[in-house]
Amino acid sequence: MAKSARLSGFPERLPAQRVIERSIIDTLEHTFALHGFSSIHHRAVEPLSQLAKDGEIDKEIFALSRLHSEGAERNPLGLHFDLTVPLARYVADNASELAFPFKATRIQPVWRGERPQQGRYREFIQADIDVIADTDLPGHFEVEIPLAVADAFSRLEPLGVPGIRIVVNDRRLLEGFARGIGLDNVQAVLRCLDKYDKVGPAEVARLLGVEAGANEEQQDLCLRLAAIESDSPEFAAEVRALGVEHPLLEEGLESLTTMLTAANDRAPGVIVAQLKIARGLDYYTGAVYETQLIGHEELGSVASGGRYDSLATVGRKNYPGVGMSIGVSRLMAHILDPATGITATRGTPSVVVIAVADEDRRADADAVATALRARDIACEVSPSAAKFGKQIRYAERREIPFVWFTDGEGGHEIKDIRSGEQTPADPATWEPADADRRPRVYRA
Amino acid sequence: MAKSARLSGFPERLPAQRVIERSIIDTLEHTFALHGFSSIHHRAVEPLSQLAKDGEIDKEIFALSRLHSEGAERNPLGLHFDLTVPLARYVADNASELAFPFKATRIQPVWRGERPQQGRYREFIQADIDVIADTDLPGHFEVEIPLAVADAFSRLEPLGVPGIRIVVNDRRLLEGFARGIGLDNVQAVLRCLDKYDKVGPAEVARLLGVEAGANEEQQDLCLRLAAIESDSPEFAAEVRALGVEHPLLEEGLESLTTMLTAANDRAPGVIVAQLKIARGLDYYTGAVYETQLIGHEELGSVASGGRYDSLATVGRKNYPGVGMSIGVSRLMAHILDPATGITATRGTPSVVVIAVADEDRRADADAVATALRARDIACEVSPSAAKFGKQIRYAERREIPFVWFTDGEGGHEIKDIRSGEQTPADPATWEPADADRRPRVYRA
Repeated sequence: MAKSARLSGFPERLPAQRVIERSIIDTLEHTFALHGFSSIHHRAVEPLSQLAKDGEIDKEIFALSRLHSEGAERNPLGLHFDLTVPLARYVADNASELAFPFKATRIQPVWRGERPQQGRYREFIQADIDVIADTDLPGHFEVEIPLAVADAFSRLEPLGVPGIRIVVNDRRLLEGFARGIGLDNVQAVLRCLDKYDKVGPAEVARLLGVEAGANEEQQDLCLRLAAIESDSPEFAAEVRALGVEHPLLEEGLESLTTMLTAANDRAPGVIVAQLKIARGLDYYTGAVYETQLIGHEELGSVASGGRYDSLATVGRKNYPGVGMSIGVSRLMAHILDPATGITATRGTPSVVVIAVADEDRRADADAVATALRARDIACEVSPSAAKFGKQIRYAERREIPFVWFTDGEGGHEIKDIRSGEQTPADPATWEPADADRRPRVYRA
Repeated sequence: MAKSARLSGFPERLPAQRVIERSIIDTLEHTFALHGFSSIHHRAVEPLSQLAKDGEIDKEIFALSRLHSEGAERNPLGLHFDLTVPLARYVADNASELAFPFKATRIQPVWRGERPQQGRYREFIQADIDVIADTDLPGHFEVEIPLAVADAFSRLEPLGVPGIRIVVNDRRLLEGFARGIGLDNVQAVLRCLDKYDKVGPAEVARLLGVEAGANEEQQDLCLRLAAIESDSPEFAAEVRALGVEHPLLEEGLESLTTMLTAANDRAPGVIVAQLKIARGLDYYTGAVYETQLIGHEELGSVASGGRYDSLATVGRKNYPGVGMSIGVSRLMAHILDPATGITATRGTPSVVVIAVADEDRRADADAVATALRARDIACEVSPSAAKFGKQIRYAERREIPFVWFTDGEGGHEIKDIRSGEQTPADPATWEPADADRRPRVYRA
């Protein structure tokens, strides 16, 4: 006998909201299938030893213990906080059974013990795509990943998701630039650049001095690099105009140029090189990505990722990977804002309620339902043989558009309760309009 | 940099296995939509106070704690061990926003800290359907639930799931019978009957004597009741022939008779009254259900449930419910047995690999992929411009049936690598056969 127990940071959806959430998930899954990503599903748990490697994330982990177990667990477990750590471990577990390069997508919840706040949850759904290679990972995958995400977002637009801007950079470019101007504490440079949007250029310059030992000229060059932003492969000329030379810088420039050239062709304007993007805390080694909802930049990145040169190891073999992670729950937080006007036509799958004239004639209604279901039409039989007015209100309250009546002598009529129109119908042939057949997401 | 870390009791699927698992899940979801069940998704956690009410289940709960949190949590949480407790709490949380009777389906993982064994896991997927009312729950829902499950299983047969037998009983029938023969410790009677299949009738008789205080005549009557099994509503005459009278017995008989009458009409032979079924530990108050895979009864019940007269409470209002839970992971354990011959055509969604003749001409291949995807054809571009033989082997290893070649001058050919046949093709019009379009589950 349960009682109410809402928990902050653990969103659950009402049926009509879930229709919207499922539409997003289905659209993402469908797009990633079109791009050749195999759909897999990770267990929720990992050994704590896999999760708690870098101090930064430790405090966010939910650890598990069995109630009433005797003593400490030999192999303590925690809930995964992202879908990258589980994928890396899955690849290590199954390396001999997978074909590489392995393209995988997972759409499922992750858990973080953070303080809940606007758009941040303790349980939230992520949709990830990754490509993992067992030797070299060709650079064109760094182009394919954001273009697949761009394709997915373009298909989400009818569901109320605004247009996006995927901002990209390349760790080699940043490292090569830093080393090329004589700053060898690359991590410190990345950490400083990472604060650009939060603290502004003047403070970044100061921090570069304090933390990376940059002199005024080096600070100035870093700021000039960080200010470069372009959706054209021509951006490389702006970088070269700064006069810095380093082989890593060249590699990064070439890779970003290739990406913008392909993007100009396949998703014009969506992908923007933004050389201040560093993603400071993560161990990326090539491309890095963040994604803004145009007009809603304050929500933060809704799809992030990058390239890791060493995602997993099996024996002496090393598995590089590149991927992005879409924050489905963060998108939902935006869509469910009443200002968007996005809503579902109904929360139940039924398009018809079959009325029951008399409890003794329930079998007549059941037979109609069986005939409709055999032709893929979702329906339900009225819960009671109440007055027809009450049965119609049952449908109305659920925004189910049709009520079906049987007269017990083989006669059938169907009423569209929006128009009030009632017409003869045959359970073997009646069809709803496509727009009514399933719950549908629309902008009010 | 992850390493391998398999965990016993936490199954993960390889891509082709996941195709099978998703086919099962999609079939269940689709069937339950046709029957008017709204799809919702529960958060993974509940307050421990909601989970740990009855001593029996305590030891199976995974409790959560935040790593490095200071001191005890104010509201300790655990992972849900079924989908009934979360639904009851969801109804209590959202009672004012839901329309009753509320028909809900959820297909998602649950967790139990049990010792893993054949067909039993620590993380496993359940598919539940329930109807919850806010006042009275009409008895016909006790009929609809197993018939919806029967419909779902009939649609699972092409995926290698054997035929089923849903065995049903009614708690009122058992309680009325026990009281009618003068045994007032009904819980003890249920507990003894629950052991029928495990220990046999002679031992059940002895236990009834010891635990329920039954004399020989009472023991004999109980065993004669427990032996009754029939798929016909005529079974009621066999019960009445035992000469026991009690109002609850009559209620239970009437309800089961209605169920078998409807079942004979809509799913002949699938639903069988089996009066030894008690489901001793659960707090059911009407119908109870278990489901056997025909020929694989040793797997145990693959779909169980029943009616609760008090699932949730809000203030003074009481919410009765009836539902069943399908063990998706247990079905998977059966299907993945190589003896079934069930397999998926491939683990990747791609039906075509677009070959790359030269890395400089990758954009040609990308353009073909974009054209195919626009017409809903899943494909991937070859990861490298290796020799064509190697690119064909890339497709072969993944059982992708087609490889597409571009000649750089607007010419296109497609090769079916099963037949070796190579023919001209147009990215704007080429279509795969329906059987090839998506990965498909079949019996080898």
